[in-house]
Amino acid sequence: MAALWQDRPVGLVGLGLIGGSLGLDLQAAGADVRAWVHRDATAARALERGLAQQVSTNPEVLNSCGLVVLALPLDQLMAPDPALVGAIPEGAVVTDVGSVKAPVLAVWDQLTPRFVGGHPMAGTAQAGVEAGQRGLFLGRPWVTTPAAHTDPEALAAVRQLAEVVGSQPISCPAEAHDRAVALISHLPVLVSAALLEAADQGAAGEEQGLVRALASSGFADTTRVGGGNPQLGTLMCRWNRQAVLNALRHYQRQLDTLMAAVAAEDWPALAAKLEHAQQIRPPFLKTPS
Amino acid sequence: MAALWQDRPVGLVGLGLIGGSLGLDLQAAGADVRAWVHRDATAARALERGLAQQVSTNPEVLNSCGLVVLALPLDQLMAPDPALVGAIPEGAVVTDVGSVKAPVLAVWDQLTPRFVGGHPMAGTAQAGVEAGQRGLFLGRPWVTTPAAHTDPEALAAVRQLAEVVGSQPISCPAEAHDRAVALISHLPVLVSAALLEAADQGAAGEEQGLVRALASSGFADTTRVGGGNPQLGTLMCRWNRQAVLNALRHYQRQLDTLMAAVAAEDWPALAAKLEHAQQIRPPFLKTPS
Repeated sequence: MAALWQDRPVGLVGLGLIGGSLGLDLQAAGADVRAWVHRDATAARALERGLAQQVSTNPEVLNSCGLVVLALPLDQLMAPDPALVGAIPEGAVVTDVGSVKAPVLAVWDQLTPRFVGGHPMAGTAQAGVEAGQRGLFLGRPWVTTPAAHTDPEALAAVRQLAEVVGSQPISCPAEAHDRAVALISHLPVLVSAALLEAADQGAAGEEQGLVRALASSGFADTTRVGGGNPQLGTLMCRWNRQAVLNALRHYQRQLDTLMAAVAAEDWPALAAKLEHAQQIRPPFLKTPS
Repeated sequence: MAALWQDRPVGLVGLGLIGGSLGLDLQAAGADVRAWVHRDATAARALERGLAQQVSTNPEVLNSCGLVVLALPLDQLMAPDPALVGAIPEGAVVTDVGSVKAPVLAVWDQLTPRFVGGHPMAGTAQAGVEAGQRGLFLGRPWVTTPAAHTDPEALAAVRQLAEVVGSQPISCPAEAHDRAVALISHLPVLVSAALLEAADQGAAGEEQGLVRALASSGFADTTRVGGGNPQLGTLMCRWNRQAVLNALRHYQRQLDTLMAAVAAEDWPALAAKLEHAQQIRPPFLKTPS
């Protein structure tokens, strides 16, 4: 299985958090890593940080790569630079790391024959060429979304990539992935952003200061993803719109039930709902790896 | 100011997380701490853990106390045991630690003349006689809610208590406290519980497993308070009902705005809202002490 990296280099397009972290881990695993970036300053800094053996602003750096990872934001995946498409070596396996899969597949299946949709479920609040770090993917799921026409060898190569950096490969249909992340990743951003706005606008004058002073770790945790990268949140909603709207409808129904119990002073009903919420949470939590 | 603890003992009613932690910190500060608990087994264990110098199931243990802290759940504060009321020494300053203040004041102002409402904003997921720990209150706000008729000496004593355990005393009207905690403490419980239910019910069959497998630290953080103690959540909503309903209305308006932007595919509007959410979060966060 080590043949993938020993025979031909791995190409990275983009050296932000995901690309840079991949570069560090892949090199540590013995791979020859080559990266294409947009700006000279990024290339220079990436080489200083050792994110890849070769880094260039010239797409020819990808020429001999057998596997190319598109470590780009969703908007760049959805409207790819023609130079990028032209730079994919013939026969190369191509995968991406975008957080929505069906629309990316719809674009890239037309552009290159051995495309496999991918989504490593790993992240930090950091971005850019300074963000890449060793071990980012350790113990985290790495989703691949093969379709009926996906080349099995290409799929195996991407799953192997995930394993080499310590991730757990999971394969599922793109639509199932997109529905799942709408519920556990995209919906929380909106739920949490609305909470920030409500806490901000629910008090006026002097009481605003009191509200801020009394906010504790519970409020900080509940609002963390809502206070995250707004561009990323917008792209997720844009490209996973239908699944996000469905998730919002499920959420609204649940919130209505809780609100109705409070309004009706039905404390046994409220307690039963909160007990149920407490019971269903543990299966969503990971044992820290 | 040290006279408060040097002249007369401090009484604790209840030795759970708050009472036990107070007992440990107050003794470390040189106070004579005496505690009244309900059960013999709790008294024995509390003495083993050194939560107070004297622990008894007999209310007479409070006899000589100059300051009594009611470290009891809201339901017990709202419908106090007549034995407790009878056990308050004449002239003692009495304070509580309940998370809603106006209804507690309405009850206790009738029961004892030197009552001061209090709410230390500190907690962990632990409860019971094993939960008390040193330093729980360090750097956290401790709200007192004096009214026009509150004895200034009693208020000063409770603020001193907060300072002795390293907390930051804040005084405000009970109603302002209750509105603030509705926004930053009680609303997040409902918002977060609804998210757990939506993630649980938004997928069926095989996809439920996928949803759970893909849930990451963001989901874990956003759902932590929603998966907390259901009795506590219910009591907060019950005794702070009007403020919680108002907070829910503010929240609903914000959620509607976000949903409308997604439904209308108004991505600039969505990005602007998420940018605003990102900008308003930092003032709610504390520098870790």
